[in-house]
Amino acid sequence: MITKAQVKHIQSLEDKKYRYKCNEFVVEGEKMVQELINSSLTINCIYATKDWIEKNPMLKNILIEEIQSFELEKMSSLSTPNMVLAIVQIPANTPISPKGVSIVLDRIQDPGNLGSIIRIADWFGINTVYCSEDTVDVYNSKVVQASMGSVFRIKTQYSNIEHLLAANKQIPSYVAILKGENITSHKAIQEGFIIIGNESKGVSDSIINLSTHKISIPRKGQAESLNAAIATGIICHSLLS
Amino acid sequence: MITKAQVKHIQSLEDKKYRYKCNEFVVEGEKMVQELINSSLTINCIYATKDWIEKNPMLKNILIEEIQSFELEKMSSLSTPNMVLAIVQIPANTPISPKGVSIVLDRIQDPGNLGSIIRIADWFGINTVYCSEDTVDVYNSKVVQASMGSVFRIKTQYSNIEHLLAANKQIPSYVAILKGENITSHKAIQEGFIIIGNESKGVSDSIINLSTHKISIPRKGQAESLNAAIATGIICHSLLS
Repeated sequence: MITKAQVKHIQSLEDKKYRYKCNEFVVEGEKMVQELINSSLTINCIYATKDWIEKNPMLKNILIEEIQSFELEKMSSLSTPNMVLAIVQIPANTPISPKGVSIVLDRIQDPGNLGSIIRIADWFGINTVYCSEDTVDVYNSKVVQASMGSVFRIKTQYSNIEHLLAANKQIPSYVAILKGENITSHKAIQEGFIIIGNESKGVSDSIINLSTHKISIPRKGQAESLNAAIATGIICHSLLS
Repeated sequence: MITKAQVKHIQSLEDKKYRYKCNEFVVEGEKMVQELINSSLTINCIYATKDWIEKNPMLKNILIEEIQSFELEKMSSLSTPNMVLAIVQIPANTPISPKGVSIVLDRIQDPGNLGSIIRIADWFGINTVYCSEDTVDVYNSKVVQASMGSVFRIKTQYSNIEHLLAANKQIPSYVAILKGENITSHKAIQEGFIIIGNESKGVSDSIINLSTHKISIPRKGQAESLNAAIATGIICHSLLS
Protein backbone atom coordinates (compact mmCIF):
# COMPACT_ATOMS: atom_id res chain seq x y z
CA MET A 1 0.00 0.00 0.00
CA ILE A 2 1.53 3.28 -0.99
CA THR A 3 0.98 6.38 1.11
CA LYS A 4 -0.72 9.63 0.14
CA ALA A 5 2.64 11.36 0.60
CA GLN A 6 4.28 9.05 -1.96
CA VAL A 7 1.51 9.72 -4.50
CA LYS A 8 1.82 13.46 -3.91
CA HIS A 9 5.63 13.30 -4.30
CA ILE A 10 5.33 11.51 -7.66
CA GLN A 11 2.62 13.86 -8.94
CA SER A 12 4.74 16.84 -7.87
CA LEU A 13 7.66 15.61 -9.98
CA GLU A 14 5.64 16.97 -12.94
CA ASP A 15 6.80 20.40 -11.70
CA LYS A 16 10.30 21.33 -12.87
CA LYS A 17 11.32 23.20 -9.70
CA TYR A 18 10.27 20.33 -7.48
CA ARG A 19 11.98 17.84 -9.83
CA TYR A 20 15.33 19.60 -9.47
CA LYS A 21 14.85 20.13 -5.73
CA CYS A 22 14.49 16.35 -5.32
CA ASN A 23 16.82 15.56 -8.22
CA GLU A 24 14.42 12.89 -9.49
CA PHE A 25 12.26 12.30 -12.55
CA VAL A 26 9.57 9.82 -13.58
CA VAL A 27 9.65 7.13 -16.28
CA GLU A 28 6.48 5.20 -17.13
CA GLY A 29 5.39 2.09 -18.96
CA GLU A 30 6.74 -1.38 -19.58
CA LYS A 31 8.81 -0.62 -22.68
CA MET A 32 10.30 2.62 -21.33
CA VAL A 33 11.26 1.06 -17.99
CA GLN A 34 12.90 -1.83 -19.84
CA GLU A 35 15.05 0.67 -21.78
CA LEU A 36 15.79 2.44 -18.50
CA ILE A 37 16.98 -0.75 -16.80
CA ASN A 38 19.34 -1.35 -19.74
CA SER A 39 20.76 2.18 -19.42
CA SER A 40 23.42 3.60 -17.11
CA LEU A 41 20.99 5.78 -15.13
CA THR A 42 20.42 5.27 -11.41
CA ILE A 43 16.91 4.03 -10.54
CA ASN A 44 15.84 5.12 -7.05
CA CYS A 45 12.64 3.09 -6.94
CA ILE A 46 10.21 1.12 -9.11
CA TYR A 47 6.48 0.97 -8.43
CA ALA A 48 4.99 -1.97 -10.28
CA THR A 49 1.98 -4.24 -10.41
CA LYS A 50 2.29 -7.91 -9.42
CA ASP A 51 2.20 -8.94 -13.10
CA TRP A 52 5.22 -6.79 -13.93
CA ILE A 53 7.19 -8.00 -10.89
CA GLU A 54 6.57 -11.64 -11.83
CA LYS A 55 7.81 -10.95 -15.37
CA ASN A 56 11.00 -9.28 -14.06
CA PRO A 57 12.38 -11.53 -11.31
CA MET A 58 16.06 -10.70 -11.89
CA LEU A 59 16.14 -7.12 -10.62
CA LYS A 60 17.90 -7.76 -7.31
CA ASN A 61 19.57 -4.39 -6.70
CA ILE A 62 16.59 -2.10 -7.25
CA LEU A 63 14.00 -1.14 -4.64
CA ILE A 64 10.68 -2.42 -6.02
CA GLU A 65 7.36 -1.68 -4.41
CA GLU A 66 4.29 -3.65 -5.43
CA ILE A 67 1.23 -1.53 -6.13
CA GLN A 68 -2.33 -2.05 -7.35
CA SER A 69 -3.51 -0.77 -10.75
CA PHE A 70 -5.73 1.88 -9.09
CA GLU A 71 -2.69 3.20 -7.21
CA LEU A 72 -0.69 3.42 -10.44
CA GLU A 73 -3.56 5.39 -11.98
CA LYS A 74 -3.31 7.94 -9.18
CA MET A 75 0.45 8.41 -9.70
CA SER A 76 0.52 8.33 -13.49
CA SER A 77 0.57 11.24 -15.92
CA LEU A 78 -0.43 8.91 -18.79
CA SER A 79 -4.00 8.51 -19.98
CA THR A 80 -3.52 4.73 -19.99
CA PRO A 81 -0.99 3.80 -17.26
CA ASN A 82 0.96 0.66 -18.03
CA MET A 83 2.09 -1.66 -15.19
CA VAL A 84 5.15 0.22 -13.97
CA LEU A 85 6.52 3.62 -12.97
CA ALA A 86 10.14 4.33 -12.04
CA ILE A 87 11.72 7.14 -10.06
CA VAL A 88 15.12 7.96 -11.54
CA GLN A 89 18.01 10.12 -10.40
CA ILE A 90 18.64 13.18 -12.61
CA PRO A 91 22.24 12.92 -13.89
CA ALA A 92 24.58 15.86 -13.24
CA ASN A 93 24.56 18.60 -15.94
CA THR A 94 28.33 18.26 -16.46
CA PRO A 95 29.98 20.07 -19.38
CA ILE A 96 30.44 17.86 -22.45
CA SER A 97 33.22 18.61 -24.95
CA PRO A 98 31.78 18.63 -28.46
CA LYS A 99 32.90 15.68 -30.59
CA GLY A 100 31.74 14.77 -34.10
CA VAL A 101 28.27 16.11 -34.87
CA SER A 102 26.03 17.58 -32.12
CA ILE A 103 22.55 19.10 -32.16
CA VAL A 104 22.12 22.55 -30.60
CA LEU A 105 18.66 23.77 -29.58
CA ASP A 106 17.74 27.41 -29.10
CA ARG A 107 14.60 27.83 -26.95
CA ILE A 108 12.65 24.74 -28.02
CA GLN A 109 9.40 24.93 -26.00
CA ASP A 110 7.30 21.93 -27.01
CA PRO A 111 8.10 18.76 -24.98
CA GLY A 112 7.03 16.53 -27.88
CA ASN A 113 9.50 18.31 -30.16
CA LEU A 114 12.42 17.93 -27.71
CA GLY A 115 11.62 14.24 -27.20
CA SER A 116 11.42 13.66 -30.98
CA ILE A 117 14.71 15.52 -31.54
CA ILE A 118 16.50 13.36 -28.95
CA ARG A 119 15.09 10.27 -30.71
CA ILE A 120 16.40 11.66 -34.05
CA ALA A 121 19.86 12.17 -32.49
CA ASP A 122 19.77 8.55 -31.29
CA TRP A 123 18.74 7.31 -34.77
CA PHE A 124 21.54 9.17 -36.55
CA GLY A 125 24.26 8.32 -34.00
CA ILE A 126 24.57 11.88 -32.65
CA ASN A 127 25.72 11.61 -29.02
CA THR A 128 25.03 15.08 -27.64
CA VAL A 129 22.17 17.58 -27.67
CA TYR A 130 23.07 21.04 -26.33
CA CYS A 131 20.05 23.02 -25.11
CA SER A 132 19.79 26.74 -24.38
CA GLU A 133 18.93 27.37 -20.75
CA ASP A 134 15.34 28.32 -21.68
CA THR A 135 14.69 25.14 -23.68
CA VAL A 136 12.02 22.87 -22.14
CA ASP A 137 13.45 20.52 -19.51
CA VAL A 138 14.60 17.13 -20.80
CA TYR A 139 13.21 15.36 -17.68
CA ASN A 140 9.68 16.68 -18.30
CA SER A 141 7.56 13.51 -18.52
CA LYS A 142 6.28 14.36 -22.03
CA VAL A 143 9.87 14.76 -23.30
CA VAL A 144 10.89 11.44 -21.74
CA GLN A 145 7.90 9.62 -23.28
CA ALA A 146 8.28 11.23 -26.75
CA SER A 147 11.97 10.25 -26.82
CA MET A 148 10.91 6.56 -26.61
CA GLY A 149 13.87 5.81 -24.37
CA SER A 150 16.49 7.72 -26.38
CA VAL A 151 16.75 10.18 -23.47
CA PHE A 152 18.53 7.41 -21.53
CA ARG A 153 21.28 7.12 -24.17
CA ILE A 154 21.79 10.65 -25.52
CA LYS A 155 23.73 13.21 -23.47
CA THR A 156 22.06 16.57 -22.99
CA GLN A 157 23.69 19.70 -21.65
CA TYR A 158 21.92 22.96 -20.79
CA SER A 159 24.19 25.92 -21.38
CA ASN A 160 24.59 29.33 -22.96
CA ILE A 161 24.66 28.62 -26.71
CA GLU A 162 26.53 31.81 -27.65
CA HIS A 163 29.32 30.80 -25.22
CA LEU A 164 29.35 27.25 -26.61
CA LEU A 165 29.78 28.48 -30.19
CA ALA A 166 32.31 31.19 -29.27
CA ALA A 167 34.42 28.67 -27.33
CA ASN A 168 34.40 26.21 -30.26
CA LYS A 169 35.02 28.44 -33.28
CA GLN A 170 37.01 25.72 -35.04
CA ILE A 171 33.84 23.58 -35.30
CA PRO A 172 31.57 24.38 -38.28
CA SER A 173 28.02 25.32 -37.30
CA TYR A 174 24.93 24.81 -39.48
CA VAL A 175 21.99 27.02 -38.58
CA ALA A 176 18.54 26.33 -40.02
CA ILE A 177 16.92 29.51 -41.34
CA LEU A 178 14.17 30.13 -43.92
CA LYS A 179 16.40 31.60 -46.65
CA GLY A 180 19.78 29.89 -46.51
CA GLU A 181 21.86 27.61 -48.71
CA ASN A 182 19.81 24.70 -50.13
CA ILE A 183 20.67 21.70 -47.98
CA THR A 184 19.95 19.13 -50.71
CA SER A 185 23.29 19.44 -52.44
CA HIS A 186 25.37 19.71 -49.25
CA LYS A 187 27.96 16.99 -48.82
CA ALA A 188 28.04 14.80 -45.70
CA ILE A 189 29.74 16.26 -42.61
CA GLN A 190 31.89 14.52 -39.98
CA GLU A 191 31.91 17.33 -37.43
CA GLY A 192 29.64 20.25 -36.61
CA PHE A 193 26.81 21.83 -34.66
CA ILE A 194 23.33 21.50 -36.19
CA ILE A 195 21.38 24.44 -34.75
CA ILE A 196 17.56 24.47 -34.54
CA GLY A 197 15.52 27.37 -33.19
CA ASN A 198 12.30 28.11 -31.35
CA GLU A 199 9.01 26.86 -32.87
CA SER A 200 7.69 30.33 -33.73
CA LYS A 201 10.67 32.68 -33.46
CA GLY A 202 13.40 30.53 -35.05
CA VAL A 203 17.06 30.94 -34.06
CA SER A 204 18.19 34.11 -32.21
CA ASP A 205 20.12 36.65 -34.32
CA SER A 206 23.10 36.46 -31.97
CA ILE A 207 23.39 32.71 -32.65
CA ILE A 208 22.86 33.10 -36.42
CA ASN A 209 25.68 35.64 -36.46
CA LEU A 210 28.05 33.21 -34.72
CA SER A 211 27.27 30.38 -37.17
CA THR A 212 29.45 29.48 -40.13
CA HIS A 213 26.75 28.03 -42.46
CA LYS A 214 23.17 29.22 -43.00
CA ILE A 215 21.14 26.33 -44.43
CA SER A 216 17.54 25.74 -45.57
CA ILE A 217 15.24 22.93 -46.62
CA PRO A 218 13.88 23.77 -50.09
CA ARG A 219 10.14 24.54 -50.16
CA LYS A 220 7.86 23.71 -53.08
CA GLY A 221 4.43 24.36 -51.55
CA GLN A 222 2.71 26.98 -49.44
CA ALA A 223 3.36 26.08 -45.77
CA GLU A 224 5.16 28.94 -44.00
CA SER A 225 7.52 26.64 -42.14
CA LEU A 226 8.11 23.08 -40.98
CA ASN A 227 7.77 21.86 -37.40
CA ALA A 228 11.13 22.16 -35.56
CA ALA A 229 11.52 18.41 -35.03
CA ILE A 230 10.65 17.63 -38.68
CA ALA A 231 13.27 20.16 -39.82
CA THR A 232 15.83 18.54 -37.48
CA GLY A 233 15.13 15.11 -38.97
CA ILE A 234 15.51 16.32 -42.56
CA ILE A 235 18.70 18.27 -41.82
CA CYS A 236 20.32 15.40 -39.89
CA HIS A 237 19.49 13.00 -42.71
CA SER A 238 20.83 15.42 -45.35
CA LEU A 239 24.08 16.23 -43.52
CA LEU A 240 24.84 12.75 -42.18
CA SER A 241 23.90 10.38 -45.04
CA MET B 1 -24.00 36.88 -24.80
CA ILE B 2 -23.72 33.32 -25.96
CA THR B 3 -26.02 30.63 -24.65
CA LYS B 4 -25.18 27.51 -22.67
CA ALA B 5 -26.44 25.46 -25.62
CA GLN B 6 -23.96 27.17 -27.97
CA VAL B 7 -21.06 26.49 -25.58
CA LYS B 8 -22.15 22.86 -25.24
CA HIS B 9 -22.42 22.50 -29.04
CA ILE B 10 -18.89 23.81 -29.55
CA GLN B 11 -17.42 21.65 -26.78
CA SER B 12 -19.22 18.62 -28.23
CA LEU B 13 -17.53 19.15 -31.60
CA GLU B 14 -14.44 17.64 -29.91
CA ASP B 15 -16.27 14.33 -30.33
CA LYS B 16 -15.87 12.79 -33.78
CA LYS B 17 -19.37 11.29 -34.00
CA TYR B 18 -21.01 14.59 -33.03
CA ARG B 19 -18.72 16.46 -35.46
CA TYR B 20 -19.88 14.36 -38.40
CA LYS B 21 -23.52 14.44 -37.26
CA CYS B 22 -23.38 18.25 -37.40
CA ASN B 23 -20.88 18.32 -40.27
CA GLU B 24 -18.88 21.07 -38.52
CA PHE B 25 -15.43 21.47 -36.99
CA VAL B 26 -13.65 24.09 -34.90
CA VAL B 27 -10.71 26.33 -35.80
CA GLU B 28 -9.09 28.50 -33.12
CA GLY B 29 -6.71 31.42 -32.80
CA GLU B 30 -5.93 34.58 -34.72
CA LYS B 31 -3.37 33.12 -37.15
CA MET B 32 -5.34 29.96 -37.90
CA VAL B 33 -8.59 31.84 -38.52
CA GLN B 34 -6.72 34.21 -40.85
CA GLU B 35 -5.51 31.20 -42.89
CA LEU B 36 -9.07 29.85 -42.83
CA ILE B 37 -10.55 33.08 -44.20
CA ASN B 38 -8.02 32.96 -47.06
CA SER B 39 -9.03 29.37 -47.87
CA SER B 40 -11.94 27.98 -49.89
CA LEU B 41 -13.68 26.41 -46.87
CA THR B 42 -17.17 27.53 -45.80
CA ILE B 43 -17.24 29.30 -42.43
CA ASN B 44 -20.59 28.87 -40.65
CA CYS B 45 -19.88 31.28 -37.80
CA ILE B 46 -17.08 33.20 -36.08
CA TYR B 47 -17.08 33.90 -32.35
CA ALA B 48 -14.62 36.71 -31.62
CA THR B 49 -13.69 39.29 -29.04
CA LYS B 50 -14.27 43.00 -29.72
CA ASP B 51 -10.53 43.50 -30.39
CA TRP B 52 -10.52 40.90 -33.14
CA ILE B 53 -13.70 42.26 -34.76
CA GLU B 54 -12.24 45.78 -34.83
CA LYS B 55 -9.08 44.44 -36.52
CA ASN B 56 -11.14 42.59 -39.17
CA PRO B 57 -13.81 45.03 -40.41
CA MET B 58 -13.98 43.67 -43.98
CA LEU B 59 -15.68 40.33 -43.31
CA LYS B 60 -19.12 41.21 -44.60
CA ASN B 61 -20.43 37.79 -45.63
CA ILE B 62 -19.65 35.84 -42.48
CA LEU B 63 -21.86 35.59 -39.40
CA ILE B 64 -19.75 37.05 -36.58
CA GLU B 65 -20.83 36.97 -32.96
CA GLU B 66 -19.03 39.14 -30.41
CA ILE B 67 -18.06 37.34 -27.23
CA GLN B 68 -16.17 38.09 -24.03
CA SER B 69 -12.81 36.50 -23.23
CA PHE B 70 -14.35 34.43 -20.42
CA GLU B 71 -16.89 33.03 -22.88
CA LEU B 72 -14.11 32.10 -25.31
CA GLU B 73 -12.33 30.28 -22.48
CA LYS B 74 -15.43 28.16 -21.91
CA MET B 75 -15.64 27.17 -25.59
CA SER B 76 -11.96 26.67 -26.27
CA SER B 77 -9.94 23.48 -26.29
CA LEU B 78 -6.67 25.47 -26.11
CA SER B 79 -4.82 26.13 -22.86
CA THR B 80 -4.46 29.78 -23.90
CA PRO B 81 -7.46 30.77 -26.06
CA ASN B 82 -6.68 33.51 -28.55
CA MET B 83 -9.37 36.06 -29.53
CA VAL B 84 -11.33 34.01 -32.05
CA LEU B 85 -12.96 30.65 -32.73
CA ALA B 86 -14.60 29.64 -36.01
CA ILE B 87 -17.15 26.96 -36.82
CA VAL B 88 -16.42 25.53 -40.24
CA GLN B 89 -18.32 23.21 -42.56
CA ILE B 90 -16.64 19.81 -43.10
CA PRO B 91 -16.01 19.44 -46.84
CA ALA B 92 -17.39 16.34 -48.59
CA ASN B 93 -15.09 13.28 -48.62
CA THR B 94 -15.23 13.06 -52.43
CA PRO B 95 -12.89 10.67 -54.26
CA ILE B 96 -9.70 12.35 -55.50
CA SER B 97 -7.86 10.91 -58.51
CA PRO B 98 -4.16 10.57 -57.67
CA LYS B 99 -1.92 13.02 -59.53
CA GLY B 100 1.81 13.55 -59.10
CA VAL B 101 3.03 12.55 -55.64
CA SER B 102 0.57 11.76 -52.81
CA ILE B 103 1.04 10.70 -49.18
CA VAL B 104 -0.82 7.59 -48.03
CA LEU B 105 -1.33 6.95 -44.31
CA ASP B 106 -2.08 3.56 -42.81
CA ARG B 107 -3.67 3.83 -39.32
CA ILE B 108 -1.89 6.98 -38.04
CA GLN B 109 -3.31 7.47 -34.52
CA ASP B 110 -1.59 10.54 -33.06
CA PRO B 111 -3.34 13.83 -33.98
CA GLY B 112 -0.03 15.74 -33.73
CA ASN B 113 1.53 13.36 -36.25
CA LEU B 114 -1.33 13.73 -38.75
CA GLY B 115 -1.25 17.53 -38.42
CA SER B 116 2.54 17.58 -38.92
CA ILE B 117 2.28 15.27 -41.96
CA ILE B 118 -0.31 17.54 -43.60
CA ARG B 119 2.05 20.49 -42.94
CA ILE B 120 4.90 18.48 -44.56
CA ALA B 121 2.70 17.80 -47.62
CA ASP B 122 1.98 21.53 -47.87
CA TRP B 123 5.72 22.37 -47.59
CA PHE B 124 6.72 19.94 -50.34
CA GLY B 125 3.86 20.80 -52.71
CA ILE B 126 2.05 17.49 -52.28
CA ASN B 127 -1.68 18.11 -52.84
CA THR B 128 -3.33 15.00 -51.47
CA VAL B 129 -3.08 12.88 -48.31
CA TYR B 130 -4.98 9.57 -48.48
CA CYS B 131 -5.86 8.17 -45.04
CA SER B 132 -6.98 4.65 -44.14
CA GLU B 133 -10.45 4.67 -42.62
CA ASP B 134 -9.01 4.04 -39.13
CA THR B 135 -6.56 6.96 -39.29
CA VAL B 136 -7.30 9.73 -36.74
CA ASP B 137 -9.86 12.25 -38.07
CA VAL B 138 -8.39 15.25 -39.88
CA TYR B 139 -10.96 17.61 -38.28
CA ASN B 140 -9.89 16.66 -34.74
CA SER B 141 -8.90 20.01 -33.17
CA LYS B 142 -5.36 18.82 -32.38
CA VAL B 143 -4.81 17.79 -36.00
CA VAL B 144 -6.10 21.15 -37.25
CA GLN B 145 -3.84 23.09 -34.83
CA ALA B 146 -0.73 20.96 -35.53
CA SER B 147 -1.19 21.46 -39.28
CA MET B 148 -0.76 25.23 -38.76
CA GLY B 149 -3.39 25.95 -41.40
CA SER B 150 -2.13 23.45 -43.99
CA VAL B 151 -5.30 21.41 -43.41
CA PHE B 152 -7.19 24.19 -45.26
CA ARG B 153 -5.07 23.76 -48.40
CA ILE B 154 -4.28 20.03 -48.60
CA LYS B 155 -6.95 17.59 -49.79
CA THR B 156 -7.51 14.57 -47.59
CA GLN B 157 -9.50 11.50 -48.51
CA TYR B 158 -10.42 8.62 -46.19
CA SER B 159 -10.60 5.35 -48.05
CA ASN B 160 -9.55 1.74 -48.23
CA ILE B 161 -5.81 1.88 -49.00
CA GLU B 162 -5.60 -1.61 -50.49
CA HIS B 163 -8.36 -0.62 -52.97
CA LEU B 164 -6.58 2.66 -53.75
CA LEU B 165 -3.31 0.87 -54.58
CA ALA B 166 -4.99 -1.95 -56.49
CA ALA B 167 -6.96 0.54 -58.60
CA ASN B 168 -3.80 2.53 -59.42
CA LYS B 169 -1.23 -0.16 -60.18
CA GLN B 170 0.46 2.01 -62.81
CA ILE B 171 1.56 4.47 -60.07
CA PRO B 172 4.77 3.53 -58.21
CA SER B 173 4.34 3.19 -54.45
CA TYR B 174 7.08 3.74 -51.88
CA VAL B 175 6.45 2.07 -48.54
CA ALA B 176 8.56 2.97 -45.50
CA ILE B 177 9.74 -0.15 -43.66
CA LEU B 178 12.68 -0.81 -41.31
CA LYS B 179 14.78 -2.91 -43.70
CA GLY B 180 14.24 -1.62 -47.23
CA GLU B 181 16.29 0.04 -49.95
CA ASN B 182 18.40 2.95 -48.60
CA ILE B 183 16.51 6.10 -49.52
CA THR B 184 19.61 8.32 -49.64
CA SER B 185 20.65 7.37 -53.13
CA HIS B 186 17.14 7.31 -54.61
CA LYS B 187 16.59 9.73 -57.46
CA ALA B 188 13.81 12.31 -57.36
CA ILE B 189 10.31 11.12 -58.30
CA GLN B 190 7.56 12.93 -60.22
CA GLU B 191 4.74 10.54 -59.43
CA GLY B 192 3.98 8.07 -56.67
CA PHE B 193 2.39 7.14 -53.36
CA ILE B 194 4.56 7.66 -50.26
CA ILE B 195 3.14 5.21 -47.69
CA ILE B 196 3.62 5.68 -43.93
CA GLY B 197 2.32 3.29 -41.29
CA ASN B 198 1.00 3.23 -37.75
CA GLU B 199 3.23 4.62 -34.96
CA SER B 200 3.89 1.27 -33.31
CA LYS B 201 2.80 -1.36 -35.84
CA GLY B 202 4.12 0.18 -39.07
CA VAL B 203 2.45 -0.51 -42.42
CA SER B 204 0.06 -3.51 -42.76
CA ASP B 205 1.48 -6.53 -44.62
CA SER B 206 -1.33 -6.38 -47.19
CA ILE B 207 -0.28 -2.83 -48.13
CA ILE B 208 3.45 -3.69 -48.15
CA ASN B 209 2.68 -6.55 -50.54
CA LEU B 210 0.85 -4.20 -52.92
CA SER B 211 3.73 -1.68 -52.97
CA THR B 212 6.33 -1.47 -55.70
CA HIS B 213 9.27 -0.06 -53.66
CA LYS B 214 10.29 -0.89 -50.08
CA ILE B 215 12.40 2.00 -48.72
CA SER B 216 14.23 2.85 -45.50
CA ILE B 217 16.01 5.75 -43.83
CA PRO B 218 19.54 4.57 -42.93
CA ARG B 219 20.18 4.27 -39.18
CA LYS B 220 23.53 4.93 -37.54
CA GLY B 221 22.57 4.94 -33.86
CA GLN B 222 20.51 2.88 -31.46
CA ALA B 223 16.94 4.22 -31.64
CA GLU B 224 14.54 1.45 -32.69
CA SER B 225 12.57 3.69 -35.03
CA LEU B 226 11.76 7.28 -35.93
CA ASN B 227 8.49 9.05 -35.20
CA ALA B 228 6.05 8.61 -38.14
CA ALA B 229 5.91 12.32 -38.98
CA ILE B 230 9.73 12.66 -38.83
CA ALA B 231 10.07 9.69 -41.20
CA THR B 232 7.52 11.30 -43.56
CA GLY B 233 9.51 14.55 -43.62
CA ILE B 234 12.81 12.80 -44.39
CA ILE B 235 11.28 10.59 -47.10
CA CYS B 236 9.44 13.50 -48.79
CA HIS B 237 12.65 15.55 -48.79
CA SER B 238 14.68 12.63 -50.17
CA LEU B 239 12.22 11.69 -52.92
CA LEU B 240 11.21 15.21 -53.96
CA SER B 241 14.45 17.24 -53.85
